[in-house]
Amino acid sequence: MDMITLIAIASIVTAGLTIAIGGIAPALGEGKAVATALSALAQQPDAAATITRTLFVGLAMIESIAIYCFVVAMILLFANPFWNHAIAAASGG
Amino acid sequence: MDMITLIAIASIVTAGLTIAIGGIAPALGEGKAVATALSALAQQPDAAATITRTLFVGLAMIESIAIYCFVVAMILLFANPFWNHAIAAASGG
Amino acid sequence: MDMITLIAIASIVTAGLTIAIGGIAPALGEGKAVATALSALAQQPDAAATITRTLFVGLAMIESIAIYCFVVAMILLFANPFWNHAIAAASGG
Amino acid sequence: MDMITLIAIASIVTAGLTIAIGGIAPALGEGKAVATALSALAQQPDAAATITRTLFVGLAMIESIAIYCFVVAMILLFANPFWNHAIAAASGG
Amino acid sequence: MDMITLIAIASIVTAGLTIAIGGIAPALGEGKAVATALSALAQQPDAAATITRTLFVGLAMIESIAIYCFVVAMILLFANPFWNHAIAAASGG
Amino acid sequence: MDMITLIAIASIVTAGLTIAIGGIAPALGEGKAVATALSALAQQPDAAATITRTLFVGLAMIESIAIYCFVVAMILLFANPFWNHAIAAASGG
Amino acid sequence: MDMITLIAIASIVTAGLTIAIGGIAPALGEGKAVATALSALAQQPDAAATITRTLFVGLAMIESIAIYCFVVAMILLFANPFWNHAIAAASGG
Amino acid sequence: MDMITLIAIASIVTAGLTIAIGGIAPALGEGKAVATALSALAQQPDAAATITRTLFVGLAMIESIAIYCFVVAMILLFANPFWNHAIAAASGG
Amino acid sequence: MDMITLIAIASIVTAGLTIAIGGIAPALGEGKAVATALSALAQQPDAAATITRTLFVGLAMIESIAIYCFVVAMILLFANPFWNHAIAAASGG
Amino acid sequence: MDMITLIAIASIVTAGLTIAIGGIAPALGEGKAVATALSALAQQPDAAATITRTLFVGLAMIESIAIYCFVVAMILLFANPFWNHAIAAASGG
Amino acid sequence: MDMITLIAIASIVTAGLTIAIGGIAPALGEGKAVATALSALAQQPDAAATITRTLFVGLAMIESIAIYCFVVAMILLFANPFWNHAIAAASGG
Amino acid sequence: MDMITLIAIASIVTAGLTIAIGGIAPALGEGKAVATALSALAQQPDAAATITRTLFVGLAMIESIAIYCFVVAMILLFANPFWNHAIAAASGG
Amino acid sequence: MDMITLIAIASIVTAGLTIAIGGIAPALGEGKAVATALSALAQQPDAAATITRTLFVGLAMIESIAIYCFVVAMILLFANPFWNHAIAAASGG
Amino acid sequence: MDMITLIAIASIVTAGLTIAIGGIAPALGEGKAVATALSALAQQPDAAATITRTLFVGLAMIESIAIYCFVVAMILLFANPFWNHAIAAASGG
Repeated sequence: MDMITLIAIASIVTAGLTIAIGGIAPALGEGKAVATALSALAQQPDAAATITRTLFVGLAMIESIAIYCFVVAMILLFANPFWNHAIAAASGG
Repeated sequence: MDMITLIAIASIVTAGLTIAIGGIAPALGEGKAVATALSALAQQPDAAATITRTLFVGLAMIESIAIYCFVVAMILLFANPFWNHAIAAASGG
Repeated sequence: MDMITLIAIASIVTAGLTIAIGGIAPALGEGKAVATALSALAQQPDAAATITRTLFVGLAMIESIAIYCFVVAMILLFANPFWNHAIAAASGG
Repeated sequence: MDMITLIAIASIVTAGLTIAIGGIAPALGEGKAVATALSALAQQPDAAATITRTLFVGLAMIESIAIYCFVVAMILLFANPFWNHAIAAASGG
Repeated sequence: MDMITLIAIASIVTAGLTIAIGGIAPALGEGKAVATALSALAQQPDAAATITRTLFVGLAMIESIAIYCFVVAMILLFANPFWNHAIAAASGG
Repeated sequence: MDMITLIAIASIVTAGLTIAIGGIAPALGEGKAVATALSALAQQPDAAATITRTLFVGLAMIESIAIYCFVVAMILLFANPFWNHAIAAASGG
Repeated sequence: MDMITLIAIASIVTAGLTIAIGGIAPALGEGKAVATALSALAQQPDAAATITRTLFVGLAMIESIAIYCFVVAMILLFANPFWNHAIAAASGG
Repeated sequence: MDMITLIAIASIVTAGLTIAIGGIAPALGEGKAVATALSALAQQPDAAATITRTLFVGLAMIESIAIYCFVVAMILLFANPFWNHAIAAASGG
Repeated sequence: MDMITLIAIASIVTAGLTIAIGGIAPALGEGKAVATALSALAQQPDAAATITRTLFVGLAMIESIAIYCFVVAMILLFANPFWNHAIAAASGG
Repeated sequence: MDMITLIAIASIVTAGLTIAIGGIAPALGEGKAVATALSALAQQPDAAATITRTLFVGLAMIESIAIYCFVVAMILLFANPFWNHAIAAASGG
Repeated sequence: MDMITLIAIASIVTAGLTIAIGGIAPALGEGKAVATALSALAQQPDAAATITRTLFVGLAMIESIAIYCFVVAMILLFANPFWNHAIAAASGG
Repeated sequence: MDMITLIAIASIVTAGLTIAIGGIAPALGEGKAVATALSALAQQPDAAATITRTLFVGLAMIESIAIYCFVVAMILLFANPFWNHAIAAASGG
Repeated sequence: MDMITLIAIASIVTAGLTIAIGGIAPALGEGKAVATALSALAQQPDAAATITRTLFVGLAMIESIAIYCFVVAMILLFANPFWNHAIAAASGG
Repeated sequence: MDMITLIAIASIVTAGLTIAIGGIAPALGEGKAVATALSALAQQPDAAATITRTLFVGLAMIESIAIYCFVVAMILLFANPFWNHAIAAASGG
């Protein structure tokens, strides 16, 4: 097994697992937030504007964590510094 | 085991696990959101419009996390940069 | 172990696990949604139309995640690009 | 260990695990749905028709996930493309 | 270790685990359904006919998942296509 | 390690684990059902006949899953087709 | 490691684990049933006869699952068909 | 590693784990039963005789499962048929 | 690694784990029983005598399971039949 | 496997897992905080200003933990001191 | 690796794990008991004497399980019969 | 694998895991604390000053645990005494 | 790997894990006890003296379990009998 | 792998894991304590002084467990007796 193969495999597996595992908690957290928002709307329809605005700010912050994971996964797939180094070393070696 | 085989295996396994694991939390979160929406509808039928709209926005955000995983799985199967490199190296080598 | 065997094994195992693991959460989520719908129906029979419609939209979105997994499993079994490449390489090699 | 043996073993193990693991969540989800239906019936006997109909639609959708797993298990046992290829290769090789 | 031994071992272990693991959820689900039915009966004895009928339909659907697993286990023990192939190959080889 | 030893070991371990793991859920489910029956009896003593009858039907269905596991364990110990084949092969070989 | 040693080890380990794991759920289930019975007795002392009778029937059914495991453990220790075969083979070999 | 050593090790480890794991559930179940008995006594002091009697019968049945595990552990330590066979074989061999 | 060392290691590890794992459940069960006793005392101070007596009987039975584990651990450390045999064999060998 | 490859692989895998695992708890914690904020808003709309301000301070502190993980992941990918040392050693060696 | 080293390592690891794992449950159980005692004191200050006395008896029994583990750990570190034997054998050998 | 590589890998992996695992509990604890603070604010708006001050003190103490982990991770990456020793030994060796 | 290295490694790893794992439960138990004390204080401020005294006694007993683990960890690091023996053997050997 | 490398790796990994794992429970316990304090403040603002004082004493005791772990981690990194011995042995050897 040469260097390129190993780095490629590690990148593939890590990219997949990063977004898969990293997406668990945001999805659960957003589900919980949305669910509570719906209960709150049902309980106090007059506060719909405040509730909706707070909900969207909260969803954005939670979604940001999923975005971090997606960014790392994309970096590993398409802008991987170690892969670039290995390719350069292989072609120049 | 040559390079191509290993990358192929890693891609196959990772693609499957990514969508399988990554789909757990969105499905649970959506189930929770839908369930609360139904409770809220039963409790406050007059607010059906607001509840439904908020529910759909929330579902869309949660579904987006599952989409991320599906996109990564599809990239690994059909637009895998490491696989393309390996194929090119194998045919040109 | 030659290349074809390994790819075949990885595809078989991954296909099975993808649909098995990926189906856990949708089934639980749908069970939760259906259960809440039934409670809501018992609590507010007059809102049956709205509840049922919302339930079906929700079930469709949750089911879509199980469908993603089923699609990936079917792709791995019957339209596997890595397998096709390996077969082509083996027959043409 | 030759190719055929390995593919056979992988198919056997995967078929069993697919239906075993894949059946966990549908059974739990259906149990939950049925349980709630019974509570709802006890609470609101007049809505029995609506509750029962909604229950059956829900059970059908949850059962479909178990069916997916059963289908994949049966494909792996009796219509396995990789096994067919291996048999053909072995007999024709 | 020859081919027959390995296939036999895989079949034995998989058959046992399939029914053991696959029976967990149906048993829990049925226990939950029966428990709720008993509560419902105690709460609304007049609806006993509807409750009992719905319970039996639900138990049948849940039991079907355990049956799937039992069928796969029996297929693996007594109608195993891979084992038959191996026996044929061994006796004819 | 010859073939017979391996099959014997696999059969022993699988038989034990099948009944051990497979008995977890039925015991829990039955415990839950019995517990609810006792609560129901305390709550509605007049419905004792209906409750008891429904309880026994439910216990029978849950117990059937434990029976499946016991049957598979007994088959593995005393009517194991793979063991019989191995014995026949060893004595006739 | 000869055949007899391996079978002996497998039998020892499996016998112990079978009764250890297999006894978890019955003990928990019986604890739950007894606990509910005590609550029911405290709530409805007049129904003591019915409650006690139902409790004992339920305990008997739950205990039966522990008995299955104990039987399998005892068979593995004292009436093990594979061990008997191995002893016979060793003494007659 | 000769036969006697291996059997001795397996017996030691299994004996310890059997009583350790097998004692988890009875202790929890008895704790639950005793706890409920105390609540019931506080709630209905007049039914102390019935509650205490039912408690002791229940504790005896739950304790019996721990006894099974203790018996198996003692058999493995002091009346182990496989060990006796190995000693006999070693001394007579 | 000679026989004595292996048996000594197995005994050490098993003795420690037996009391460590085996003490988990009794401690939890006793904590639960004591906690409920305190609640019961606060709720019904007049029944203190009955509650205390029942508590001590229950604690004794739960503690007995921890004692079993302690006994097995002590046997493994100080009255280990396999170790005695090995010492005798080593000194007499 | 030379030094550079191993460090690259360790960095890739660790970077992905750090953000994936490290993002679980912040997402859950934020989901919980947002959900409670929405409930509090529905319960006491007059305190919206205080609630929103406290919520944002809390979210910022929780998000900081996810930022720590993201920082470590980025350091591992783009400012890895060990990688820099290895590159320098490799080019200068 | 000679005999003394292995026994020393096993003793070190086991001693640490025994007290670490064995202390989990007593700490949790005592926490639960103390917590309930505080609730009971707040609810019924007049019964403080009885509650405190029962609490201390209970804590003593729960603590005894942690003491068992501590004793075993100390025996393994400072009065280890297997270590003593090994030292004697090594010095006299 | 030389000494430097191994220490580098261990430092990378440990640094990532330390902050990832060590951040789980603080994030959950802070989420819980913030959530309760919001509930308390909604319930008793007049005590906002006391609640907010206590909240910030509590958050600071919980955050300190995450800081410990971050400090250890940074020490491992940028002030690692073992790495410094290895570099010195390598350059001076 | 010589004897000293192995004992050192085992001591390091065990010391860290002992205090890390052994501190989990006391921290949780103390958190629970403190939390209940605060609720009790809010509910019955007049009993503050009794509550606080009981709390401190309880915390002391729970803390003692963490102290046991800390003592064992310190013994392993600074007064390790096996390490002392190994050093003596190495220097005198 | 020489002695120094192994001890360094063990120290690095153990130091990180000790503070990471050892910080889980204190953070959770403190979160729980702070949360309850906030509820208690909202419920009984007049007892703020007592509640706050008790809270800080409790937090200090819980934090002490995290401090133990931090101390052990720092000892392993900067005052490791085994590392010092190894360095001395290496330089003097």
